Amino acid sequence: MKVNGTYYRTVWMEGNDVLLINQNLLPFEFAVVRSPDYLSTCEMIRDMRVRGAGAIGVTAGYAMAQAFALATGNVAVFVNDARSRIESTRPTARNLFYAVEKVFKAGLNGGSKEAMAEAELIAESDISTSKRIGEFGNTLLIDNTSVETHCNAGWLAFADYGTALSPVYCAAAAGKDIFVYVDETRPRSQGARLTAWELYNEKIAHAIIPDNAGAWLMSKGLIDIMIVGADRIARNGDVANKIGTLEKAIAAKEFSIPFYVAAPLSTFDINCKAGSEIPIEERSQDEVLYQTGPDSEGNMHKILVCAPGSSGFNPSFDVTPARFITGIITECGIIKPCEEQIMYLINSQ
Amino acid sequence: MKVNGTYYRTVWMEGNDVLLINQNLLPFEFAVVRSPDYLSTCEMIRDMRVRGAGAIGVTAGYAMAQAFALATGNVAVFVNDARSRIESTRPTARNLFYAVEKVFKAGLNGGSKEAMAEAELIAESDISTSKRIGEFGNTLLIDNTSVETHCNAGWLAFADYGTALSPVYCAAAAGKDIFVYVDETRPRSQGARLTAWELYNEKIAHAIIPDNAGAWLMSKGLIDIMIVGADRIARNGDVANKIGTLEKAIAAKEFSIPFYVAAPLSTFDINCKAGSEIPIEERSQDEVLYQTGPDSEGNMHKILVCAPGSSGFNPSFDVTPARFITGIITECGIIKPCEEQIMYLINSQ
Repeated sequence: MKVNGTYYRTVWMEGNDVLLINQNLLPFEFAVVRSPDYLSTCEMIRDMRVRGAGAIGVTAGYAMAQAFALATGNVAVFVNDARSRIESTRPTARNLFYAVEKVFKAGLNGGSKEAMAEAELIAESDISTSKRIGEFGNTLLIDNTSVETHCNAGWLAFADYGTALSPVYCAAAAGKDIFVYVDETRPRSQGARLTAWELYNEKIAHAIIPDNAGAWLMSKGLIDIMIVGADRIARNGDVANKIGTLEKAIAAKEFSIPFYVAAPLSTFDINCKAGSEIPIEERSQDEVLYQTGPDSEGNMHKILVCAPGSSGFNPSFDVTPARFITGIITECGIIKPCEEQIMYLINSQ
Repeated sequence: MKVNGTYYRTVWMEGNDVLLINQNLLPFEFAVVRSPDYLSTCEMIRDMRVRGAGAIGVTAGYAMAQAFALATGNVAVFVNDARSRIESTRPTARNLFYAVEKVFKAGLNGGSKEAMAEAELIAESDISTSKRIGEFGNTLLIDNTSVETHCNAGWLAFADYGTALSPVYCAAAAGKDIFVYVDETRPRSQGARLTAWELYNEKIAHAIIPDNAGAWLMSKGLIDIMIVGADRIARNGDVANKIGTLEKAIAAKEFSIPFYVAAPLSTFDINCKAGSEIPIEERSQDEVLYQTGPDSEGNMHKILVCAPGSSGFNPSFDVTPARFITGIITECGIIKPCEEQIMYLINSQ
């Protein structure tokens, strides 16, 4: 995607350095940060300067390659330790473990150069799969469709294009009028901050809505289709995604709104039989209690947005049972969220 | 309720002045404002220094009484005009129209003194009905119950006690351990700001959760019962309440969590056949795009919390169809949300 006329990926490498768009500064400031080694790359994943299932995966793959480049002494011990550190940054996104494992194996077999090549392959594959997801998803969107989306599964969440927003970008490029209702997605407001920023940059008509408004808009016939991303998909089609996805999926079913999940095959975890096995990350209560943003003069402030002294509870993801999901848009086509179709797709790769 | 050891109602009169707790300053500052005439009282309703169905009703009743006290010349013309102005402050809450009509009739029949007496009666009735709602609702709460609530239907939303929180206060006073999950309730965050402030003052254990977390907590068995307030209840049991109520009610039904609405009979609008007839207030998009609060040094800031340039959409209420509601807790007992039981209760008054 382009920002101010220049093409950017969300994350890329220059030599042994990982470069990425600092998503903690968006939408108020666009800046690229550079990480010279896997430990600082881990820190960038942990503090969410990079976030989103695909982008986390690509970055983790790069971090694993950085570890191979840095490995001295007993390489196996070094890279095993590095792998553990990278894997411990974020627990929920399947893509992270997928990428780390692939780069780890490539590095053990072929050394640092192979690890780097594998990591780059993962990044390029992330882009091409995201683009194909967009093309398949586009078939669901006729002219004048209104789409609701939750969180950010746009190009910032992947290396490029994204998943849930990729069909919107593809449809818009094909000349269709698409309107996007963007769930704010508290507590980190990835919808209001990142998805809205992407759509504004891409000149796609949209409105930010409070997370509370989804069911009401559905009941009033204002939503034609809902498309969200996924952090991990179990073998039975249950989907772990940003907290609030479950609530939207239940409401969508109630009002017969098609509810689609867009995700690459790397998001499927066939070792995970059902959603109940997916670990759910609980993040700091400060994300609920405070918000950060600029005042009218552009000065940034972190403000308290609740009663002083009260506590918050902040589960970051939830699991949507397959029965609420109309279909999963993958890079190989749109499937039903059931083990038979998932395993057929995985096994035919 | 007590604040710093002193008993307060949310709104009261001294002579011809209306005094009320400025809820726009809460939870960061506790201050009482004084309004000498009905026009400035209208402004206080409109800018939400007072909010909450019951408190709006009581304040509107006082405003109508202030108008009678001020009326000169052609009294009928004056008070009719005043009535229109008061009724136009907020469109959704039934209690406002209920109170204005009662005080208007009393004033036309008996003059300013009768109007004032009627307004005071409405305030006192608000308190006693809220207390009775608490007593009936308390029967639903055993020891160690966890309650989820949305928005603020506590004592700040009424003259005292409140509706949705009144059962919690009654249960706590009876020595029961109650834990309250407080929906943040974006965009105005009445849960995080007002409900949490009340519960903190009353030393009742609670946690603020993002609005997105409700269904997930329900699915994990963390919620025993959900209780919300109401701004207007149609003859068929459909309930208009803060945006997001519908989504919670749908989720509660999905997970077989009892979903109760707590409201006095004055909230029922028997002239309104179904929820589809209830006007829904749409408020400024700025409530979605900006947040206000103090930094760590207590300085207040209004900050942008979304992508610059993006628009917001802000419907403030939604309508929950009766089929999602387990029961309605009134001052006369707990009823099913159906026309038969509603009309029986109204007609037996």
